[in-house]
Amino acid sequence: MVPLQVAAALAEAGRSMDARGWVPGSAGNLSARLNETTIAITRSGVHKGKLNAETDIIAVDYHGNALAKGQKPSAETLLHCQIYRLFPHAGAVLHGHSVAATVLSRLGPIKFSDYELLKAFGFSTHELEVNLPIYENDQDISRLANLIEPGLANEPPIGYVIAGHGVYAWGTSVEHALWRLEATEFLLACELERRQIK
Amino acid sequence: MVPLQVAAALAEAGRSMDARGWVPGSAGNLSARLNETTIAITRSGVHKGKLNAETDIIAVDYHGNALAKGQKPSAETLLHCQIYRLFPHAGAVLHGHSVAATVLSRLGPIKFSDYELLKAFGFSTHELEVNLPIYENDQDISRLANLIEPGLANEPPIGYVIAGHGVYAWGTSVEHALWRLEATEFLLACELERRQIK
Amino acid sequence: MVPLQVAAALAEAGRSMDARGWVPGSAGNLSARLNETTIAITRSGVHKGKLNAETDIIAVDYHGNALAKGQKPSAETLLHCQIYRLFPHAGAVLHGHSVAATVLSRLGPIKFSDYELLKAFGFSTHELEVNLPIYENDQDISRLANLIEPGLANEPPIGYVIAGHGVYAWGTSVEHALWRLEATEFLLACELERRQIK
Amino acid sequence: MVPLQVAAALAEAGRSMDARGWVPGSAGNLSARLNETTIAITRSGVHKGKLNAETDIIAVDYHGNALAKGQKPSAETLLHCQIYRLFPHAGAVLHGHSVAATVLSRLGPIKFSDYELLKAFGFSTHELEVNLPIYENDQDISRLANLIEPGLANEPPIGYVIAGHGVYAWGTSVEHALWRLEATEFLLACELERRQIK
Repeated sequence: MVPLQVAAALAEAGRSMDARGWVPGSAGNLSARLNETTIAITRSGVHKGKLNAETDIIAVDYHGNALAKGQKPSAETLLHCQIYRLFPHAGAVLHGHSVAATVLSRLGPIKFSDYELLKAFGFSTHELEVNLPIYENDQDISRLANLIEPGLANEPPIGYVIAGHGVYAWGTSVEHALWRLEATEFLLACELERRQIK
Repeated sequence: MVPLQVAAALAEAGRSMDARGWVPGSAGNLSARLNETTIAITRSGVHKGKLNAETDIIAVDYHGNALAKGQKPSAETLLHCQIYRLFPHAGAVLHGHSVAATVLSRLGPIKFSDYELLKAFGFSTHELEVNLPIYENDQDISRLANLIEPGLANEPPIGYVIAGHGVYAWGTSVEHALWRLEATEFLLACELERRQIK
Repeated sequence: MVPLQVAAALAEAGRSMDARGWVPGSAGNLSARLNETTIAITRSGVHKGKLNAETDIIAVDYHGNALAKGQKPSAETLLHCQIYRLFPHAGAVLHGHSVAATVLSRLGPIKFSDYELLKAFGFSTHELEVNLPIYENDQDISRLANLIEPGLANEPPIGYVIAGHGVYAWGTSVEHALWRLEATEFLLACELERRQIK
Repeated sequence: MVPLQVAAALAEAGRSMDARGWVPGSAGNLSARLNETTIAITRSGVHKGKLNAETDIIAVDYHGNALAKGQKPSAETLLHCQIYRLFPHAGAVLHGHSVAATVLSRLGPIKFSDYELLKAFGFSTHELEVNLPIYENDQDISRLANLIEPGLANEPPIGYVIAGHGVYAWGTSVEHALWRLEATEFLLACELERRQIK
């Protein structure tokens, strides 16, 4: 049901994320938009660095329900659906847990100023300050999606972080989403190191 | 004596641990429960990141004695046996030495609060504080096992650390134990970074 | 137009840089001098850790113009051209973004004193202090090149950093440029760690 | 002249060291004792993470002179020879540059107390304090060897560091030397992290 090429791209992105330490245990989830009714997403309870493209990526509708009976998508599928619904150009969504994102998201606002890498998000200059929104973690994903919705809809951010949890990044393709995730994590790593200088 | 599939899973887990820097020198040991009388465990004096599945994983009984003459199991085999004895669902035990575990275990209690990744241990929420027990290191493994026993028996922890030494993690399978070890080490890395912010 | 051997060496250097985390997203650019009129350089908008030697390395003249119609070289091509123009022995130029370079370049002068690794730059002793010049970032690459020119021409440095952006390193060959980049990044990592000691 | 098996073991150790970031540029050197008159050592000016076993490992005598005309051994060959001369059981010597060793060796004495990993050096307990000797760097290798000699001869250490430069480790075989180097670097990494806690 999920084209193997899409599943393979997600599995490859998962291996890249694992090599950076962003998917510890069975954490993280990865998805791609297939068409106007269907999304491909990692299933629940598998290691995202060792995805089997043939069995670990499943199809869900835009309400997060698995199309095939008995399949269980990632717990946070609704957050992926929300991004595809709000952003027509979003073709893939990647969510990982990094140490930098986890630590910094619990310490107050995260703002990136004057970094060249901000250009990875389509800005034409580095001379700006960009906010990475932080939302309080909530196991009720529906409620969490409602909390996030106004920010996404009104002022599309470069991505967002759930506090003590991890980053959500997206792009036009799996590759592009991974570029933006790498850029976000790079900036978070810079902020963490900067705050550790005595 | 040890099924090759089990030995291969342990060797693969060792390579993952080595890639993260958790088995420096010949440190660490890995095991899996085979049946009611036998455990498979890494032998003493080999590098756990370069395990030969055919020769480096040996069978021991629940008292830690090698079944084949002349084979020498890891020095800390008794701690593995203890976990299998106390936890019927434990199918594999992984012990590694990470920099974060080594450093933090010498600085007082380790508590993880409000991390999403706590869900890796079966909790249904991130809104809790979880203690990672620390035990003083002891070269007398029998005495060390006795020290650890009450804590394990009374209030099963998510794992434990021996001070200045490393983490013991377990799970229903080798893969599951590795997930839990990854989650534990991720949380320890978060705590270490957090404490280094000025 | 670009000899495959040169393109393959640049692609391999890109993979090494990616393994170290120096080319997040589509950041960084890599080039090699082909002859007195032509330079090989990575094209714009590709991941430098996953370069396809046959399609991602293109030929430009010394003014930074692509020789083949419709090809778009890296945005910072002029900075590469400048190095080849000023330094006859420069055979390759590598530019990456590391966390250490990004963080330190925003905090004032960077000086390396008494490091053995300074010998990687041709010094015969470690007993000296070497300055790594920092230039303010500018999206107008022509203007940035003019800002950099006097320093390069008057007192050739071991390389340089653009603030909040990354390192430019060069050498007689792709391999030699990578050695010098590795040495520069190692020294930056040492400085970052040193400044984090309480 | 150098048995391919020995050269391959050294090349493999070099790749392990490079994966950890311990041989930036052309830094580091690796050797193995061949017999009572000959030592195999990496030649000068090659990357130690990409050693060609057939061409990059050469034979030298115990005075550090290449046996084949025109071959140039690593600049610090005499320090390897010294270790083989003083320690009959030393079968291999590894020297790398790590960030932790470079930074800490410039900040005063390095002592490791109560680490389990001290057992990697043959101690039967972790309850001890072990000194890692630091020697001032010197480009005159002969003079540096003379400075080091008394310490090595009188009280054989677990290895030593040259300030701002890197670690010398040895063992009965290439594999054993790498274990000891990994243990030394692990302890240095622990010390560095510990000193960065606020």
